[in-house]
Amino acid sequence: ALLAILDPLHAADIADLVEQLPEDERDTFVRLYGDKFDGEVLSELDERLREDVVHAMEPAVLAEAVRVLETDDVVDLIEDLDDPQTEAVLEALDDDDRVVVEQSLSYPEESAGRLMQRELVVAPDHWNVGQTIDFLRSQDDLPEQFYHVILVDPRMRPTGYVTLGRLMGSAREVPLTDITEESFRTIPVLQDEGEVAYAFNQYHLISAPVVDADERLVGVITIDDAMAILDEEHEEDILRLAGVDEESSLSDKIVDTTKRRFPWLAVNLVTSILASLVIAQFDEVIAQFVALAVLMPIVASMGGNAGTQSLTVAVRAIATKDLTSANLWRVIWREAAVGLVNGIIFAVVMGVVGVIWFSTPLLGVVIAVAMVVNLVIAGLAGVIIPVVLDRMDIDPALASGAFVTTVTDVVGFFAFLGLAAVLLI
Amino acid sequence: ALLAILDPLHAADIADLVEQLPEDERDTFVRLYGDKFDGEVLSELDERLREDVVHAMEPAVLAEAVRVLETDDVVDLIEDLDDPQTEAVLEALDDDDRVVVEQSLSYPEESAGRLMQRELVVAPDHWNVGQTIDFLRSQDDLPEQFYHVILVDPRMRPTGYVTLGRLMGSAREVPLTDITEESFRTIPVLQDEGEVAYAFNQYHLISAPVVDADERLVGVITIDDAMAILDEEHEEDILRLAGVDEESSLSDKIVDTTKRRFPWLAVNLVTSILASLVIAQFDEVIAQFVALAVLMPIVASMGGNAGTQSLTVAVRAIATKDLTSANLWRVIWREAAVGLVNGIIFAVVMGVVGVIWFSTPLLGVVIAVAMVVNLVIAGLAGVIIPVVLDRMDIDPALASGAFVTTVTDVVGFFAFLGLAAVLLI
Ligand SMILES: [Mg+2]
Ligand SMILES: [Mg+2]
Ligand SMILES: [Mg+2]
Ligand SMILES: [Mg+2]
Ligand SMILES: [Mg+2]
Ligand SMILES: [Mg+2]
Ligand SMILES: [Mg+2]
Ligand SMILES: [Mg+2]
Ligand SMILES: [Mg+2]
Ligand SMILES: [Mg+2]
Ligand SMILES: [Mg+2]
Ligand SMILES: [Mg+2]
Ligand SMILES: [Mg+2]
Repeated sequence: ALLAILDPLHAADIADLVEQLPEDERDTFVRLYGDKFDGEVLSELDERLREDVVHAMEPAVLAEAVRVLETDDVVDLIEDLDDPQTEAVLEALDDDDRVVVEQSLSYPEESAGRLMQRELVVAPDHWNVGQTIDFLRSQDDLPEQFYHVILVDPRMRPTGYVTLGRLMGSAREVPLTDITEESFRTIPVLQDEGEVAYAFNQYHLISAPVVDADERLVGVITIDDAMAILDEEHEEDILRLAGVDEESSLSDKIVDTTKRRFPWLAVNLVTSILASLVIAQFDEVIAQFVALAVLMPIVASMGGNAGTQSLTVAVRAIATKDLTSANLWRVIWREAAVGLVNGIIFAVVMGVVGVIWFSTPLLGVVIAVAMVVNLVIAGLAGVIIPVVLDRMDIDPALASGAFVTTVTDVVGFFAFLGLAAVLLI
Repeated sequence: ALLAILDPLHAADIADLVEQLPEDERDTFVRLYGDKFDGEVLSELDERLREDVVHAMEPAVLAEAVRVLETDDVVDLIEDLDDPQTEAVLEALDDDDRVVVEQSLSYPEESAGRLMQRELVVAPDHWNVGQTIDFLRSQDDLPEQFYHVILVDPRMRPTGYVTLGRLMGSAREVPLTDITEESFRTIPVLQDEGEVAYAFNQYHLISAPVVDADERLVGVITIDDAMAILDEEHEEDILRLAGVDEESSLSDKIVDTTKRRFPWLAVNLVTSILASLVIAQFDEVIAQFVALAVLMPIVASMGGNAGTQSLTVAVRAIATKDLTSANLWRVIWREAAVGLVNGIIFAVVMGVVGVIWFSTPLLGVVIAVAMVVNLVIAGLAGVIIPVVLDRMDIDPALASGAFVTTVTDVVGFFAFLGLAAVLLI
C-alpha cells in the first residue's frame, strides 16, 4: 500500500514526506519501505536526517540503494554519515566507483572537488564534428548527464567545450575549435562551493570542467548541483542573519534546537546587559523623569531597525560581490545620509509626540536629537561592521547583527539619557 | 582604451562594473562604449539601472544591441523599461522575434510565460533515434541553447523528452519513447516564477516544456533562468525579512533609498510607541524602583531575538514547503518547548545577575519569570504569525518581523513590569 502511494512521487517529494514524519514514524517508514528503498530518496533527504535513516536501514537495502546513485551524489551522501556507515556505503560500491568516490572525498569539504562528477566526455581538440559524433555513437557507457564535450590538449588540459546542440547542428568537417562556446571557463578543484555557485549564476554556466593545480581535467560540475549549493548558501545567510545555526532543520529534536538557538541568545544577553549598564549610569535622571524610561526603548528600537536594514543590504551586497572598494565610500555616505534624512523625519514626529504626551518641550528636543544621532550611527555601523568582518574573513552574515544592535542600543540609550541629563537637570 | 579593458570581460562582469559607477560616470561610460555596446551587458544589468542606461544610449546603438539577444532575454529587458523605450526596442527586432516577444509579454509579470524561450526542438513521439538525428542535422537554425528534444503528440502536447546525450548514445532504430527521461514534467504557462524555480531545484530539471491551458507546448524554460529567479526570490526574502523594500539596489540614489527604508521604520515607530504605552502604565512602579528601567530592555530584547530566530526558521520553511499541516503542530510545540528551556536557562542567569546587581531577591524572581514567559511567547508567535500570514496570502517574509517584535516587546514589558508591580509593591 505504501509503495503504491509513493510510486508516482518524485524521490525529492518522498524525501520531503519523510522529513515531515515524527521521529518514531520515520523508522516505521524505513521498515515498510523495505528493500524497495530508492537511493535517490536518501540522496534528496535533509542531510541532518540521513544518519538516522541510514541507521534504520538493513545493510543489504542500503547497499542496493546507493548502487543506483551517481558518484557525485554518493559523495554528497557519505559526507554526512558517521564512519561505520561510510564504510558500509563504500563497500557496497563497485570497485571503480569506490575509487572515484574516495578521490572526491580526498578534497576538502565544501570544495569543487566534492561537487564534481567524474563521468565526463572529452575529445582531443584537433578533432572535427564528424569524428566526435562517431566517437560518441560508438561509446556504450556515456554519462547519464552531460551537455558538453570538453576539448582537451594532449596533456588533458581543457581548452574549450562544445554543446551537444552545436555538434548536432554542424557539418561533419567543421573542426571542434570552430564551434566552442564563449562561456567556457574552468573551475579550480579547491575552489569553495559558494564561489562555484556564484560563477554558475553569474556566467550562466550549464556545466564547467574542474581542473587541478596543473590545469588538468579532473571532473565536471553541472548546474543542477550548483543550483542546490546556491540555495544552501542562501539558507545559511538567512539563518545566520537571524542568529540561528545554519545546520538547523525543522526536523531537529527539541534538545538540538535549543542548543542551536542558545549561543546567539547568550551573546544577545551579554550585549543587552551592556546596554543596561549604560542605562544604569543615568538612574537618578530616570528616577526624576520617568518619562525617560517610557521613551528610551523607542530610540533604541528605531536604531536597531535602521541598523538591521543597512546591514542586511550590506551583507547581501558583499555576498553578490556588488559592494567593492569602488563603491564602498559612496555606499557608506549614502547610508549615513539616509539615516540623517529618516532620522530628521522621525525626530520631528517623535519630538511632537514627546511634547504632547509629556508636555515638556525639552523632552521633545532630547528624543529628536537622540533619534537623528542613532539613525546616522545605525546606517554607518550597518555598512562598516559587515565590511570589516568580511575583511577579517569572518562571515558578515554571522556576527554583524549582534555588533550592530549593540552599537545602536548603546548609542541610543547614551544619546537619549545623556542629553536628558544635560538638558533636563 | 576602454574597449581594450572590457573586451576580455564577461558581459555580467561589465554590467557589475557599470553598477558600481557613480551616476554621472555611467552616462560617460555609455557614450564611450558607443556603438560597440554589447546587448548582453544590458541584459545582465541590474533592472533598476536599465532605464537610465537605455536612456543614455543612441537609438541606433540600442537597436543593434538588442538584436543579438535571445527573445527571452529581450522580454526580461523590456519588462523594466518605460513605454517609449519598449517601443524602440520592439521596433529594432525582426518581425518574427517581435511577435514572439509580444506574445511573451501578453502573459502576466512573474509568470512562466515571461521566462520561457520560444526557440525549442520538438519531434513527433513516434520517431526513432535515427529519424531524430537526421532531422536535427538537417536543420540550419537550431536554438543556441537546447538540451532536450521534446516529444509531442499530433496536437502538440508534450509527452516526454530525450536528452541529446541519450540520443547520441542510442542506436538508430530505438524509438524515442524508449529513452525518455523520468524527470519529465511540464510547467503551466501561468505558473508563478517562484514556483518554477522551486520545481527546477526540487526535481533537478535542466529544461522544462511550458504548456498552455490545453496542455499544448508554448515554450521551454532552461535552468540558468530558473537559477536566476531562485536567486531573486532569496534576495526578496532576505530584504523583506529585514524590512527593506525588495527593489532596493546598491546603486539607488539617497532619496530612493530613504523612501524604500521609510515605511518599515514608520511601522516600527508605531509598534514601539505601543510598547511605550505599556511601560507608561507602570510609571509609578518605575519611579520607585529605577532598577526596573535598567533591566526591562533585557527582557524585551531577548524576546525579540528569540522571536526573530523562530520566525526566520518558519518563513524559510514555508518558502521551501517544509512546514506543512503535517508537521505544523509539532513545530509549534517544539518552538514553545525550546523557548521554555532557553527561557529557564536565561531566567536563572538573569535572576542571579538581578539579585547580585541590585541585591533585591524579588527582582531576580521578577526578571526570571518574565524571561520565561517572553521566550515561550516569542517561540509561539515566531511560528504562528508567519503561518497565519501565509494562509491569508500575505508574504510572511514581509510582515512577520513587525508583528513578532511587537508581541515580544509588549509581552516582555507587561510581564516584567506587571509582575514587579504585584511583587515589589
Ligand atoms: Mg527535501
Ligand atoms: Mg544530482
Ligand atoms: Mg553536502
Ligand atoms: Mg557552504
Ligand atoms: Mg550531479
Ligand atoms: Mg555565506
Ligand atoms: Mg553581481
Ligand atoms: Mg549584476
Ligand atoms: Mg525580470
Ligand atoms: Mg518574484
Ligand atoms: Mg534563457
Ligand atoms: Mg518570496
Ligand atoms: Mg523541500
